[in-house]
Amino acid sequence: MQMYDLIQKTRRKESLSEAEIRYIVNGFTQGEIPDYMMSAWLMAVCCQGLTTEETVTLTLAMRDSGECLDLSEIGAVTADKHSTGGIGDKTTLLIAPIVASCGGFVPKMSGRGLGFTGGTIDKLESIPGFSVERPVPEFIRQVREIGCAVISQSGNLTPADKKIYALRNLTATVDSIPLICSSIMSKKLALGADCILLDVKCGNGAFMKTPESACELAQAMTDVGNLAGRKCRAVITDMNAPLGHAVGNALEVAEVIEILQGNAENALSDLALELSAQMLELSGKGNLADCRKLASEALSSGKALEKFASMIEAQGGDASVTEYPEKLPESRTERIFRAEKSGYIAGIHSEQVGLACLELGAGKTASRPEIDYGAGVVFLRDVGDEVSEGEALGIIHGASEALCEQAEQRLLQAVRISETKPEQIPLIHQIIG
Amino acid sequence: MQMYDLIQKTRRKESLSEAEIRYIVNGFTQGEIPDYMMSAWLMAVCCQGLTTEETVTLTLAMRDSGECLDLSEIGAVTADKHSTGGIGDKTTLLIAPIVASCGGFVPKMSGRGLGFTGGTIDKLESIPGFSVERPVPEFIRQVREIGCAVISQSGNLTPADKKIYALRNLTATVDSIPLICSSIMSKKLALGADCILLDVKCGNGAFMKTPESACELAQAMTDVGNLAGRKCRAVITDMNAPLGHAVGNALEVAEVIEILQGNAENALSDLALELSAQMLELSGKGNLADCRKLASEALSSGKALEKFASMIEAQGGDASVTEYPEKLPESRTERIFRAEKSGYIAGIHSEQVGLACLELGAGKTASRPEIDYGAGVVFLRDVGDEVSEGEALGIIHGASEALCEQAEQRLLQAVRISETKPEQIPLIHQIIG
Repeated sequence: MQMYDLIQKTRRKESLSEAEIRYIVNGFTQGEIPDYMMSAWLMAVCCQGLTTEETVTLTLAMRDSGECLDLSEIGAVTADKHSTGGIGDKTTLLIAPIVASCGGFVPKMSGRGLGFTGGTIDKLESIPGFSVERPVPEFIRQVREIGCAVISQSGNLTPADKKIYALRNLTATVDSIPLICSSIMSKKLALGADCILLDVKCGNGAFMKTPESACELAQAMTDVGNLAGRKCRAVITDMNAPLGHAVGNALEVAEVIEILQGNAENALSDLALELSAQMLELSGKGNLADCRKLASEALSSGKALEKFASMIEAQGGDASVTEYPEKLPESRTERIFRAEKSGYIAGIHSEQVGLACLELGAGKTASRPEIDYGAGVVFLRDVGDEVSEGEALGIIHGASEALCEQAEQRLLQAVRISETKPEQIPLIHQIIG
Repeated sequence: MQMYDLIQKTRRKESLSEAEIRYIVNGFTQGEIPDYMMSAWLMAVCCQGLTTEETVTLTLAMRDSGECLDLSEIGAVTADKHSTGGIGDKTTLLIAPIVASCGGFVPKMSGRGLGFTGGTIDKLESIPGFSVERPVPEFIRQVREIGCAVISQSGNLTPADKKIYALRNLTATVDSIPLICSSIMSKKLALGADCILLDVKCGNGAFMKTPESACELAQAMTDVGNLAGRKCRAVITDMNAPLGHAVGNALEVAEVIEILQGNAENALSDLALELSAQMLELSGKGNLADCRKLASEALSSGKALEKFASMIEAQGGDASVTEYPEKLPESRTERIFRAEKSGYIAGIHSEQVGLACLELGAGKTASRPEIDYGAGVVFLRDVGDEVSEGEALGIIHGASEALCEQAEQRLLQAVRISETKPEQIPLIHQIIG
């Protein structure tokens, strides 16, 4: 088998066999296929696509490139969740304790922030003492005992994905449905949960800008998950504005605690409850109506907050933050930013908000590899709200006045104020699978 | 400027500026842009194409990557010719002396055989003593004095093309019109002839399988040539059967001599005369009718043969081969292959003939880097001829009986015999520019 011929085939939209796809994945992972051949193949995939069958085969080959976890010790149906990423998306921190407190089991490996998007792992590390690095056996034990654990990727899972992703990231071959699908799903399959709920974001703050492209990705991922023998469902959700009010690591954890305390009800809490209900239903905890009720009660009864505290404690963190969120790290400076004119908030450009927070220190950059866990922004108003000129729109948290002022400029541009009330965009566009 | 963004642009069919294209070409040539980025960009070009303007800019950037010859010392209009390559294509060896003997000036740098196609340089090297390596000043002096010279690429011409071509050859990014066009035309422009005649082959033995794709390539190349200020014309010619009767280095030189001696008139001599006339017309030697007459007389008078002898002598070769072609190298064994049934020769699959000759030793392979200059095949019959079962179709020349028998199998498959007389395909499909 020659890599040259396989590149040619994909370029000509001729299907590759299972043996051919495994040759590519294994050859590249083991360093036998050079980067320049692989990047040509990846670009051919981006331009010409792959069939569903090829995408499934690619995903399984990537899964099989490394360790696959055995979750049978948990002794119950397990449910994993993946979000394609967005600004202010802290749903994992809500869903894991909600589902676990309803009798579900959530083994979750999460990622760090990348570019202007935050990462669940960075958010958790803003909790004093919290450890995201756990050996696999401890991770499994914690899920069995508490019902949930959220750690960063551990073990030698999907080395093929790590290597392919690094190359895609250098060669403008990131936004391709079969490549995104195989990258996400190979990790999900290697982790090994029985049920997989996919939260596919669409809108200006997401990778997929339109519901159509998000549906296409969702369909590809659920097809792969189901063909690989898992119960798989995708929820297409809106990411035209940041999710919830807070963006920034500790600020987002504080918002999570506020919701788990029952002190806030908004689009974020609605979404977290719906996704939790879906995961519980996939896990066999009853029909969807029952599961929605279960999830809602877990929140109102305080059980989900307790579960969050247990998880923090189990991972070495200071669980008292769930009672005293002021113990979370805070930035030195605060600055209120205000509406420049009166009208309705027509939109909040998530990507711009993400960039403002990145510049404030909420994420790593090449020139500043340290995260300021307290940095970020808390919005006081939502999309659709009427505001008056000079009214406070939100609070910026940063290390210095200069940083906050810089962020203010970007945020004022991100918040679009119009004379007419905008049409309301539903938070959930569609459910697939 | 970031290569990542430029790859992304081409992938999204957004045009690159001149500065961006020069950044890519120079960055890659100087080793600043790594292979894996370049191959991703090349694949994006293959899949998404380039505009005419981008192709021109790419060609000029590649031309400017190295030395550009100054042919002004020749003191006359110069005409170059390029063929996109085919089986049995020895037109350069006919055209250079014909045009030169009519007062034209042909400075020609040719290539070696690649894969199953022969190379003009290898053919010339079958002439005892002939040297294809000449320093540029000598090359120019020879053209001024004799009117023609055919050497292998000399000097530091288009290093960008060499590096890009090597990468394309490993990454299945060869067959792309803008990439083929820029590769060929950058070399033509760096050589610097005033007029450029392009012989674009189409058919089963050519890179371009259909007249339409050949026209597209021809149009791209003439556009680039004309926009770069050269007189440029393309002739689309048929390559559904080998050109002429002989395939193999010394065998082809012998066929050239036979035609220059006036002892053979066939499709090959017709094509050589027409291409010569076109070059003479481009060079300002009169209208096309006059130039056809000039070329024809050069052949019938023996002047072209004399010119060929002068060129061989000037390049250190044994010019007496033009009188005694038996002095050319001969293979040890000959074998006649015969028609397996009666009928009409409906087609001769050029690529299969090329492969048969390659296996006989007429070209280099990884396992046999030595050329057997005498090896190849001479057809005795043409496409369209009626043949009887058992009638000799041609003579195979090779180093051993075993090699000749192997070639026979392939050749018998390559010659398609049908019950009905095939439609005649014109040798020249179209002239562009």
